[in-house]
This record gives sequence, structure tokens and C-alpha cells, in this order.
Amino acid sequence: MGLPVGRLILRRFADGEVHVQIEESIRGRDVYIIQSTCPPVNENLMELLVMIDAFHRASAVRITTILPYYGYSRQEKKATGREPISAKLVANLLTAARADRVVSVDLHTPAIQGFFDIWMDHLSALSLLTEYLRSVRRSDAVVVSPDVGRVKLADKFSRALGLPLVVLHKRRPAPELAEIGLVIGDVKDKAPIIVDDMITTGRTINESVKALLDAGAKPEVRVAVTHALLLGPALDYLKNEAITEVIVTDSIPLPKEKRLDKIRVLTLADLLAETVRRLNRNESISALFGA
Amino acid sequence: MGLPVGRLILRRFADGEVHVQIEESIRGRDVYIIQSTCPPVNENLMELLVMIDAFHRASAVRITTILPYYGYSRQEKKATGREPISAKLVANLLTAARADRVVSVDLHTPAIQGFFDIWMDHLSALSLLTEYLRSVRRSDAVVVSPDVGRVKLADKFSRALGLPLVVLHKRRPAPELAEIGLVIGDVKDKAPIIVDDMITTGRTINESVKALLDAGAKPEVRVAVTHALLLGPALDYLKNEAITEVIVTDSIPLPKEKRLDKIRVLTLADLLAETVRRLNRNESISALFGA
Amino acid sequence: MGLPVGRLILRRFADGEVHVQIEESIRGRDVYIIQSTCPPVNENLMELLVMIDAFHRASAVRITTILPYYGYSRQEKKATGREPISAKLVANLLTAARADRVVSVDLHTPAIQGFFDIWMDHLSALSLLTEYLRSVRRSDAVVVSPDVGRVKLADKFSRALGLPLVVLHKRRPAPELAEIGLVIGDVKDKAPIIVDDMITTGRTINESVKALLDAGAKPEVRVAVTHALLLGPALDYLKNEAITEVIVTDSIPLPKEKRLDKIRVLTLADLLAETVRRLNRNESISALFGA
Amino acid sequence: MGLPVGRLILRRFADGEVHVQIEESIRGRDVYIIQSTCPPVNENLMELLVMIDAFHRASAVRITTILPYYGYSRQEKKATGREPISAKLVANLLTAARADRVVSVDLHTPAIQGFFDIWMDHLSALSLLTEYLRSVRRSDAVVVSPDVGRVKLADKFSRALGLPLVVLHKRRPAPELAEIGLVIGDVKDKAPIIVDDMITTGRTINESVKALLDAGAKPEVRVAVTHALLLGPALDYLKNEAITEVIVTDSIPLPKEKRLDKIRVLTLADLLAETVRRLNRNESISALFGA
Amino acid sequence: MGLPVGRLILRRFADGEVHVQIEESIRGRDVYIIQSTCPPVNENLMELLVMIDAFHRASAVRITTILPYYGYSRQEKKATGREPISAKLVANLLTAARADRVVSVDLHTPAIQGFFDIWMDHLSALSLLTEYLRSVRRSDAVVVSPDVGRVKLADKFSRALGLPLVVLHKRRPAPELAEIGLVIGDVKDKAPIIVDDMITTGRTINESVKALLDAGAKPEVRVAVTHALLLGPALDYLKNEAITEVIVTDSIPLPKEKRLDKIRVLTLADLLAETVRRLNRNESISALFGA
Amino acid sequence: MGLPVGRLILRRFADGEVHVQIEESIRGRDVYIIQSTCPPVNENLMELLVMIDAFHRASAVRITTILPYYGYSRQEKKATGREPISAKLVANLLTAARADRVVSVDLHTPAIQGFFDIWMDHLSALSLLTEYLRSVRRSDAVVVSPDVGRVKLADKFSRALGLPLVVLHKRRPAPELAEIGLVIGDVKDKAPIIVDDMITTGRTINESVKALLDAGAKPEVRVAVTHALLLGPALDYLKNEAITEVIVTDSIPLPKEKRLDKIRVLTLADLLAETVRRLNRNESISALFGA
Repeated sequence: MGLPVGRLILRRFADGEVHVQIEESIRGRDVYIIQSTCPPVNENLMELLVMIDAFHRASAVRITTILPYYGYSRQEKKATGREPISAKLVANLLTAARADRVVSVDLHTPAIQGFFDIWMDHLSALSLLTEYLRSVRRSDAVVVSPDVGRVKLADKFSRALGLPLVVLHKRRPAPELAEIGLVIGDVKDKAPIIVDDMITTGRTINESVKALLDAGAKPEVRVAVTHALLLGPALDYLKNEAITEVIVTDSIPLPKEKRLDKIRVLTLADLLAETVRRLNRNESISALFGA
Repeated sequence: MGLPVGRLILRRFADGEVHVQIEESIRGRDVYIIQSTCPPVNENLMELLVMIDAFHRASAVRITTILPYYGYSRQEKKATGREPISAKLVANLLTAARADRVVSVDLHTPAIQGFFDIWMDHLSALSLLTEYLRSVRRSDAVVVSPDVGRVKLADKFSRALGLPLVVLHKRRPAPELAEIGLVIGDVKDKAPIIVDDMITTGRTINESVKALLDAGAKPEVRVAVTHALLLGPALDYLKNEAITEVIVTDSIPLPKEKRLDKIRVLTLADLLAETVRRLNRNESISALFGA
Repeated sequence: MGLPVGRLILRRFADGEVHVQIEESIRGRDVYIIQSTCPPVNENLMELLVMIDAFHRASAVRITTILPYYGYSRQEKKATGREPISAKLVANLLTAARADRVVSVDLHTPAIQGFFDIWMDHLSALSLLTEYLRSVRRSDAVVVSPDVGRVKLADKFSRALGLPLVVLHKRRPAPELAEIGLVIGDVKDKAPIIVDDMITTGRTINESVKALLDAGAKPEVRVAVTHALLLGPALDYLKNEAITEVIVTDSIPLPKEKRLDKIRVLTLADLLAETVRRLNRNESISALFGA
Repeated sequence: MGLPVGRLILRRFADGEVHVQIEESIRGRDVYIIQSTCPPVNENLMELLVMIDAFHRASAVRITTILPYYGYSRQEKKATGREPISAKLVANLLTAARADRVVSVDLHTPAIQGFFDIWMDHLSALSLLTEYLRSVRRSDAVVVSPDVGRVKLADKFSRALGLPLVVLHKRRPAPELAEIGLVIGDVKDKAPIIVDDMITTGRTINESVKALLDAGAKPEVRVAVTHALLLGPALDYLKNEAITEVIVTDSIPLPKEKRLDKIRVLTLADLLAETVRRLNRNESISALFGA
Repeated sequence: MGLPVGRLILRRFADGEVHVQIEESIRGRDVYIIQSTCPPVNENLMELLVMIDAFHRASAVRITTILPYYGYSRQEKKATGREPISAKLVANLLTAARADRVVSVDLHTPAIQGFFDIWMDHLSALSLLTEYLRSVRRSDAVVVSPDVGRVKLADKFSRALGLPLVVLHKRRPAPELAEIGLVIGDVKDKAPIIVDDMITTGRTINESVKALLDAGAKPEVRVAVTHALLLGPALDYLKNEAITEVIVTDSIPLPKEKRLDKIRVLTLADLLAETVRRLNRNESISALFGA
Repeated sequence: MGLPVGRLILRRFADGEVHVQIEESIRGRDVYIIQSTCPPVNENLMELLVMIDAFHRASAVRITTILPYYGYSRQEKKATGREPISAKLVANLLTAARADRVVSVDLHTPAIQGFFDIWMDHLSALSLLTEYLRSVRRSDAVVVSPDVGRVKLADKFSRALGLPLVVLHKRRPAPELAEIGLVIGDVKDKAPIIVDDMITTGRTINESVKALLDAGAKPEVRVAVTHALLLGPALDYLKNEAITEVIVTDSIPLPKEKRLDKIRVLTLADLLAETVRRLNRNESISALFGA
């Protein structure tokens, strides 16, 4: 956007408490804070909350919190009894700190929008990712949902790219046996594109690749996700030679040691800059929405 | 439960306004209101809100609102810009009327639980439906998700019944052509069980049956859903001879004229009675949960 | 006002659920929604609530909800125990949907203003109605309050028109007899003007006319009310030849079949347009107030 | 009730600040505070708010605030533009101090009940007053509403006592002349009972007596009101020999110097004790309601 | 500031209720109300709350409440069990009346800022007082904290003036004896400047002077405080000849009869005018902050 | 208390997100969560918030959160402009997660009680510490406040122990020189007891010891604090031979490697157990209060 970043001192006291000192008057200003709540998620989240409190008390007229990656987004319902709904808790905490608007990208479940009574905008990196994939499109490609929870997302990729859809799921062949990956749809001699909203430990991707190869897919697998957490064994899994390319965004900063040659990072900078520009000018941003 | 229903006069004034007069003292009582917000949804919802207000002002100590069917649950996110999130609006209205707890069954999206800051319990009719289906289980059956948004639900049926999973989705063969239904997975000579959370107009079911038959499935289709709205052409579609049985619950009262012979209605009465009993006694209800 | 109405698609799904799609960007705009919550009151109210939610989520900077007729306004207190206060419930629902300001006309009880913590403006059609009545003023006219609850309103008309005041009320002559209408004040050979805030079924008007004629009034009765609901037998009652003219406003749309020749509809358009203009320009509207 | 009053030190610091020290543990107790917000209204109100705060922080499980007289109740709407609605402000202040329930007697407008989202019970001294009046009932008595705003209340007395209803109002005979009192209804040789919710300065009563006598009423006027503020010239007005008896309640403590022989004070003690007993035992109090 | 004060009628009804009528349109205006909640504190506070309600309902766009003196600020914690925290109650009441921003000067405890979720600015008269004291600075002066709770404030004066710090406290020499004042630090032949946030009854000052003289201080004591309540015996204590000058601000209006020659009143007018100017223009006011 | 700790699985996902699974039904139970928000403060705080959310959603009837150490308590006011008030933010976060009651021990500022609108109890370890100190009391001891902000606390120790009070503070001898510690009061040949609410890096203690020794104190310094954070160089400072004993509580778990021989840890277990017992039984806890 060509705008300087505001001056602000963010530091930790010896006991780990976050402290913020805003270095210029922001009274009556329209403030945008960009912070992914990626790991270390609790540290990043508290930093964000303390910053919002400081900006509010310094009389910002409107505080827009942009979370390119929304931590705790996978805990969006009670899977069994006596669990938290931490994604809602995060919404309540952001509201309690008095954010006025929240912007995020490719939430694990779009219904998280409804967790907020303050303004919430849900952007999508879908067109960024599919635009790139189109440039490398092959006639033998298929879009693969790595499990039953991601079929809707995979369907969007499949429609955007005009490619067939394949669904993976797991089943226990017999009560005493381990679960194995099953493939619904035809992958024989196909070049799969596994799509997901995020890679965490890479285990799902790894199992998906195995199941796909077992079912006769070509060892030329692409992986396309928005959020690259790449924790624990993820890098090792991705080094698998059957994976030829991994397309991610920079919603989470990727440290140098995680930058494999085969990982291509697409930047959200233009999307977010355009969003800030339009929000500040009260222009429509619906063209940038995910759902 | 063997308990009498509380005495209450619910009527409409000449201008259609709802009026409630509670006929016995409920001061300090633990009140349970059971009302599906099925069509006419706005009338039923306002009735419910007015009742909650009346019970609150009459000093009920706790008001539990049980919605076997939660109207507006399909509007749980902004699909495009400038839309409401009506499922969240309903949550806010129930809260504004001062319900203390909300109970519902098989929500369109489990994340709707997170729309509430008051207590929200999400029950499931899954075991009720699968128990019945097991009794008629055939070795050639497959579980069918009628579109990409229901695969997760279909997967649960498939696991519970030990049957293969099939996914339907739609695709436009060419830009100038209409969308057609595609089948992922093997249905050749199989007896499909289409599962969904609700039947509204039946159009999705109808197209699913066509796509399944085109793909070689046996004309012995079962349909299993929790909520039977059966609006518009739904009954005509269900009369299709390829559909042999439709299993639903009584989350929505089914008027006589909609009771086809092939529709089997399983009752939620035991599930709800058990829920009320446990809530009143502060016993765990997590065994009754959906997710 | 010469301003175009905003583009917006308001429709019902097959199951009766309201859906709104705003067709142009209203981000940062000052939005005015005009909707009477007249019958079908619950449908109209839910439509309004869903629209407010949609406008809020589309980032309108201020949402003013104008209800020329405020449904449920007669349920503004508990008349006996264990009743709702539905007029307050409606205030809470509008607030929960996140309206910023509410404007209404001639509320059944002015104290409804105090049901709101958001901004509430109470306009009056009194000067519109009295201006017309002055044009047909006769020296033998008297202003009539049809029951003891409307005397304050009748007093305002009586002062504005410089006419005597008459009060009707009902009394049971003996425990075993039906209530009859009594007239306090002199109507002998007078031409009565019955005033009220609304006509619903017309029964009160009908009984008032009878009581007035019994007391010797001329069969030249005028009726002046703000809100013309005209439900059930109302039209038949109004066809009574002793009623020579009925003056109402268009706070509630009057369908063609209800437009008797003797009904004169005065339009609130100028009042509301002026209100919107002043609110938008932050000019005083106290001159337009009722109380 | 036979219960001791709780021990509590309520005092003022040198600068007039209220301080409360509760002298016994009330943790987990059901607390009832009885305090009329009569003059000095602001002092009494702040005392009440500070007490509520102290009881809340001392962990009372429920705080019921009983205001036999609700100060500011006559400011319940905006009569012109740019006024407060102080009766609603008081409701908001009681809520902000965290009262759980409010009980009051014969509010100036019953709609004040709807100013509260916390529990609000509205009691009535009507039966107390009419019971007494019945004992002195004379066949020549009429019930008089002293102005157009009290006709509804007067109607209730008139029905309860089986007496005719008379309405007073004021009118300016010509633009350059002062307002004079007019009588609607027949008072010739009648013994009037003027009813109202409160006497403040007594001016309205004084003018009513004049208008009644001018219209031929007997100089044997009774006055019946719930709240006896008796400010400024009130006592002088009441000493008028045409007033034979003034019936009031003890909702406001009447100091000795104001106790004229002709003032009969009926006590609310039984009504309030019964209310506390029933609230504490969760029994119905609707029989005690006003409206 | 050269701006006229807004027109407003503030009066009391006969029963002591506050009434406000704003005499000019303030719709959409940025309103500043300046009112110290000094004695009579409850009257002043209720006046303020009613004014805020009136300005809010008259659609002021932002209401800033400036309390040069914040009544109840010394009740900011529970000193023993079952007490109110009245300073927090006041914060809740201001918020409930819907003030948007509160400004105060030299709060008894700076943590009172945190009692507010609305904007709160805490100004300081420290530089005003120290600037004056510097003009009369003597090499033999010491800054005295009159008790252990004011040492932090005294330290600020001591740093600003470059003078030594002395602390007074009280101790009971033996269980059966009265408390006596003890001096920590050297005051022998020194000219003490006793500093505090407020003088109420002057007892603390009086005891401090005695203890200082007993410890050998010169009978040339200065007293510097922000808030001059001067209640009860305060003036008599201040007339003590050992007190040569009392420096206060006009945060509380000082009536003529309290204006001793030795009392020098510094005006906060410039500080508050500058604050209003900067707030209205959205300029930084942190240079004016206390802490 | 002899009660078992509830069963609960608290774990981290690979990405550091907290997850809680409560292992037994707690529906309708009175739940107490004990967790100090000591370093790692953000991790501990988020754990606590997620637990509260889980307990709330599992229908605990009341959730009491006991923070023996309240992290961020030193950020309780804005020291300069544009800072957060993080102690208030923490209060808002606990409230947003829906804790019902918060208990803490020896807060940095007692006014933090007023940051809460939910119930807040402030306990004190003062009697625990002074009881121990009395057992080792020496006639030559003095109580030392290490800076001007702790004098009030030191005064409480001094009163409880019947010992003289000494105050340390810092001053810059000349603008170009570093600050040095100054001693107010007599420490010559005395055995100082430095008291504070917490030790973080120990720097203040270290400087205090130096200043005391320079002023002639005996090298037999005791340190008594409630919260032992002991970060960074703290242990090294405490190893100083002039420090003979450090008395702390177990409000923060002290790992083995920090347990110097001279550190004596007094346990809060009895105080907290008694608090839980009394809260659960609705008995008074004011005897356990700090202020």
C-alpha cells in the first residue's frame, strides 16, 4: 500500500508479560493490526489482545484486526461432551478486548463468521491458488479431498479448475484391524492435486499420498493449501519424492529452514492491502470474500 | 416422561399478534419449551420468543428451549457479500428473549453451537436412524452423500453401518450446458441409502436418484433424514417407485396428507424426554450428543 | 425525497424463511429501512430483523429502522400475572439485530420510547389529522374518547381543534347484566369526532357510535385514527351510515378492497421524508415529535 | 413478617458520600432492600445503589429491591425534544448496580415495567384503598379523575366501588385568557372522591376542588392517593374545609408535622410482607399485582 | 476556549427530582459536560447522569464527561468484607447513562482508570502545582507525605522539585495508648511542603503539622493539594499560623467564605480547555496525563 | 480438603493450541479451578480461559477461578499515554470466558478488585508471613519498603510486627548522574526485613540491600514476599550473603533448581482450602481478606 507501518514498541517483560507502547498519536485514527495467531498461538493471541486494548485506550476510532491465520479455528464445535469451543472463545476474547472488526482468510469452517457480533469479513485465497494451479494445469490432473471434511473445499477447486473430484476417507476393514485410507473416484494414472485449508503435521497429506499411489495415481502429487503450519514431521513428509510441488500462502511466516525448493509461497499481500484500502475508503470488499 | 404439559393459553389477536397467558404459577420452576421452528417458521419463532418472554417475566428460574428442528439453520454463513447470517440472528433473538439454554437436533452445521453464549446442547438422531437401517441392512447397500456438503454426515452413517461411501456432486460439462450429477464411487448394482439432514423440496433427492440410476444402481433407494419438511413437489418426488423407503423423525410434525406408506417416522420422544430428565436432574447428556 | 430506493432482493425460500440479498455496496452508508410491522406482523417483523442483520453485516455505518406502525405496541405492560410484555420484546429484538435507531409514529403508549436504550424517536400524525379536521370543522362538533384509555389523546385533539371533550366508558348496570356504553359529557345534537390511535376490528368504534346515538348525537360521526388495521368486521362496521367520514394515515398500506369512499387516507410521506432528511443531516427533529 | 431487619451500618462521610458496612454474613442469602426513593430523591437513590453494590459484592444470591415509591416515575417519556427519560435512567442505574429484581407499587405509568430487563413486579394499593372507601361509601358519591391522564385509574376505582365516573380537564376559553377547569359528567349535589397516584404540591387537587364546587358538588370531597409526597403548599391546600378526608398509604414516610387529622394513612406493610414471603418461597404473587 | 456554553435548563421539581431541557439542537454534536461530583455529591452525580441521558437521547454523537473532581474516588477497594466499591459503582453508573468518555484529574488511585471500559483519560495538576511551588522554592524545603498511602505522590513532587522526601505515619506506642504521628526522614529546621490529592476535614493535615513541629520543622508549612473540599473543621485547622500557604486548584468551586488569604487557587481552566480542544480535534493529550 | 482433584485431560495440539477434555460429568456442579498465571503467563492464561469455556459449556453451575498469582497485575494503570491496562484486559478476558467468581491473593494494587463486575475476592498472605516473622523476631529489626510504591504494604507489616518503618527511594543527585538509592528512616545497626508483593528479577531487592548496607544496616537482611517469580538474575542476587532468609509463599510453584536453602516457602494450601470450603458452603470469607 505504500503506507509506513505505525511506530509501536512491543516487548516482553522479564516474566513474559506482553507490553505495548504506541509511539505516535493514533487518536481518532482508523487502525489496522495484522497478526496471524499461528504458533506460538497463545503468545501471538495475547500480543494481539494487549495491542487492541492499547489502541482502544489510545482512542483509535476503529480497530480492524486482520488474522491471515485464525488460530484455534479447528475447535469450532463440541466433538464430544465437555469440550470447549475454542474458536468461539477466541471470538469472545477479541470482542472483549474491543476490536471493532475482524478479517480472516480461509477459515476452517465458514460458520465461524457467525461467532462474531462485531463485523467479520472472510477472505479467500482460493483464486490466488487456482490461478497458479491453472498455469501448471495438466489434462491428467484430479482434485483430491484428503478426507470427508474437506470435500466442499475440494469441490470449489475442482469447479474452478474444471478437473474431476476424488474423495479420500478412512475405514477399518474389520474391528481388530487398523484404519486404512480408501479412495472414492478414479485416480488411476492421474496426477493428483491434494487441497486442504492447512498443513499442520503433514500426516494427513502423507497418508493421502500413500492411498493415492496404492490406487494407481502417478507419483506426481501437488499439494495446495492456504495455511502452512508445517509442524513436527511435516517437512519430512513433504520431502517424499512423489510430491512434486507444494503451493501455500504466506498467511503464516515460513522461516528459512522450512523453505524446501518444492514449496512455492504465494503472497497474500495484495489481497490484504486491497482489503485495507477498501475498508478505509468504505468500498465494497465482497469480491474478495470466501465463504 | 409421564409429566403433564403445563397449562398455557397461546392465541392470536385479530391482527395476528401472538399472546400468551400462563395458567399456573411457574415461579422458581425449571421450564422446558418444546417447539420446532419449522414452517410457518416466522410464526413459530415469534410464538417461541413471546413464550420465553412470558416465562421469564413470570420468574421461571431456568428456561430451556428445545427446538427439534432449528429454522434458518441453513443460513449459517455469508455465501456472498451483503447477506444476513440468519442462523446467528436466531441465536441472538433467543438470547435477547432471555432463554437460558437451547437444545436442538442434527443442526445443518454443528458450528451453530458456537453461535450461542448461553448453554447449547446438540443432540443427534444418528443412532436412532442407523439402528433402524441396521434392521433392514442388505449386503449390497451403499451410503450416498447427495452433495459435497453432506459427505461428513454420510461418512458417519457409513461407519455406523459398515457400508461403502458414495459421493454425488454436480458439474457443468461445458460452459453452455446445464449441470449434471456425477457419482464418485461405485454404485453399480448397489442399493443406495441417501442420507441428509433434511428434505425440503426433495429436488436434491430427486436428482440424486436419477444420477444413481444412470450410474447403474438398483431401483431400490432408501432415504434417511432427520428433518422432513416435505415442501412443494417433495411428495411427488418421493412417490418415485425407485424409492422404496423414506426414514425420517418427527422433529417436524408430519400432517396426515403427507404420510405416504413408504415414509417411516421414528419418534424423538424418548431422546427428548431423556434429555429433559437428565437436564432437570443435572445428569450428563453427552451420550445423547451429536457433533 | 427524490432519492431512489436501494436495490435489494427480499424473498422467501420454499420453507418460508426470509432471505435478503443487498444488491449494491452500502459499506459506510447511513441506511434507512421503512417497514410497518402490521399484519402479517410476525412475517413483517422477521423480514425487518433479517434485513437489519444483513445491513449490519454489510457494514452500514448507521441503521435507522422506521416503523410507521409498531406491531405489538398494545402489549406494553403485564395486565395480569404471567404475561409477556411483547412491545418490550420487540424493542429487545430490534436491538439484538443491531439497529442503531428506531423511529415510529403515534405509539399506543409514549412510554414505549423508554423501552429502548438505542435512539428512539417518536413522531406524531396529530397535526396532519387535526389540520384536515380543521378544514371540515363544524361548530357543533365534539371530540370523543372511545374509552378511558384514550382520553389523553382525545384531549390533545380537543385542544388543537378548540372543541369540547366527551369520554365514553363501559359499565355493568348489575352483576348479571352485560356491559353497556356510558357517555360522560354532552353530545345531544352534536356531531362527534371519535379519535383513537388505531382501528383494528372496529368493534370499539361500533359500540361508541351506538352509545353516542343513544345519547342523542347527530348521525354524522367522524372517526380519526393514525393506524388503519381494518381487520375482520371493521369494514362492515364502518359502512354504518351514521359514520360520515373516516380519516386515517397510510402508516399501514390499505389494499384496494378496503378503500371505502368514506375513508380518507392522509399520507405520512412528507413527515417521514423530512425526518430522514433531518436525521441524515443531523438537524433537529423535535418539531416532528409526538409524546 | 416477624423477621429481624439485617444489621447494616449506613452512614455519610464528612463530604456526604454514602458508605455501607454490612454487619453480618449474607453470602448466599436472598436479600430484600426496602427503600422508597422519595425526597430527598437523589440521596435515597444513591443510598440504594450503594447498598445494592455492597450486597452484590458480599455475594448475596439474589437482591430484590422494593421501592414502595419509585422516584422519577413521572419522567417516563420525552414530552418535548431533548429531554431525559429519567424513569428509564433509574431502571438502568438499578440494573447497573446489579439488582436482580425490582418491586414497586402503583407506578405513574404501568409501562415502566417494560423499562426493565431484570424481573419487575408491579403491586397495587388499589384494593387497600377501595376496601377502605367502601366502608365509608355513600350513595351520592362519584369518582373524579383530576385530569385527562388519570381517567384509567379513576375508572378502576369507579368499577371497584360501583360509582359514576367524572373527568376534569382544563381548557383556555380564549387565547388571551387563563386555563380554567372543566367538568365532564354530573357532579351536582354529589360527594366527590378525587383519586390520583400521588399528591405532590397539591395544586391539582386544589384546582379540582374549586372546579367541583363551582359545578355544584357538595363540599364533602374525599381524596384517595397511593403516594403522599405533600410538598410545598400541599398541606395548606388539604386544610380546605371542603376536603373532609384524605386517604393515603405509607409508601412514603409521613413526618409528624404533616399528619393532619383528616389524613388517614393505610399501611402497605401487609402487602409488602406477603410479597417478600411469596417471593422467597417462589409462590405466585400475581394476586398482588397492579397493572 | 472562547466558545459559548451550550444553552440548557437544569432545574429541580418540587420533589427534588432533577430535570434537564436542552435548549438548542445538539444532534450529531461532540458534547462536553464539565461537572465536579463534589458535595453535595449525590445531587451533583444524579444531575450529571440525567444530563448524560438527555444528551444521549437528543442524539449527541459523543458525550465526554469531565469530572475535575471524581466523587467517591476514595472508596476504590473493599477495605474489609461486605463493603461497596463505590468508585466502581460510579463508573458503572456513568457507563449505564451512556457517557462515551470520562476525563478526570488526579484520581485518588490511578487504577480507577481501569474501572472503565469506555474511554477514560486521567489528567494531572502536578505540573501546575509544582510550577507554582518552584517559584517560591526555598533551599530548606522538604516534601512531606502525610501518610503511607501518599508516598508515591509525594515522591513525584519531590522529584519534580528536587527536594528531599519525608514520610509521616502513625503508630500506637503501646496497646493501651493512642496513635501518634511518627516522622521518617529529616525535618529538623526544614520548611515542609505537605502534599496530598485532597483536603477534606483537614484532620490529617493538622496532625501532620503537629508531628512536623514536634520533630523540629520550621513553623513555615506549605500545603499543596489538587482538590480542596474543606469540610467541617478544615478552615480552622488551616488558620493555624504554622501554615503559611495552601495551594489548591479550582477542581471544586471554593465559595467566598472559604477563601482564606493564605489559600492560593490555581485554575485548571487552561488544562481542561486544552483537553477539550485536543479531544475535539483528535490530537494527542498524553502530555496532559497523570498516572 | 481431602477432596480428589477432578479428572480432566489438558493437552497441547502439535501447533500449541490448548485442548481440554473434562473426564467426568460436572453438570450442575460448583467448580473451582486453581491456576496461577505465572510465567509462562500467556500459556497459563489461555489454558485457564479454555478450561473456563469448557466448564461453562459442560454446564457447571458456578465457576470460581482461583489465581494465587494474578499475572499482568502490575499493568494496572496507564503510566504514560497509549499504553494498555493489561490487568483490566485480563479481568475482561476472564469475564468473557464466563467465570462467575475470581479469587486472588495479594494483588499488586487492591483496586484491581474494582476491575471486575463478577464476584472478586482478594485474599491476603499477610498473616501467614507475619506469623512466621514473629517467630524469628528480633528487637533490632526494621521493616523496609524497597520503594515508594510499597510503603502502604510495609506499613501493614510494621504494624503487625510492632517494628519501625523505613522507606527507600531513588534520586538522581544531579542531572548527569545515575539514580542512587536513598534511605528515609533509621537503619543504623538494624536488621532489615524488606517486604514486597513479589520478587521478579530481584534487582530492586539487590539495590535495596546495597542502600541499606551503605546506610549502616547489619548484613542480616530478611526478605518477605508473597509471590516468588525469581526470574533472570534473581537467584544470584538472593545468594548475596547479606541476605540471611527469604520468606515466600507457594503462590507460584518453585522448581527444585530455584530452592535455595535460605528460601523458606510457606504454603497457601490451608488458606485456599478454607476459602473453597467456605465459598461452597456460603460461609463468610471476610476474615481471609486482604485489602
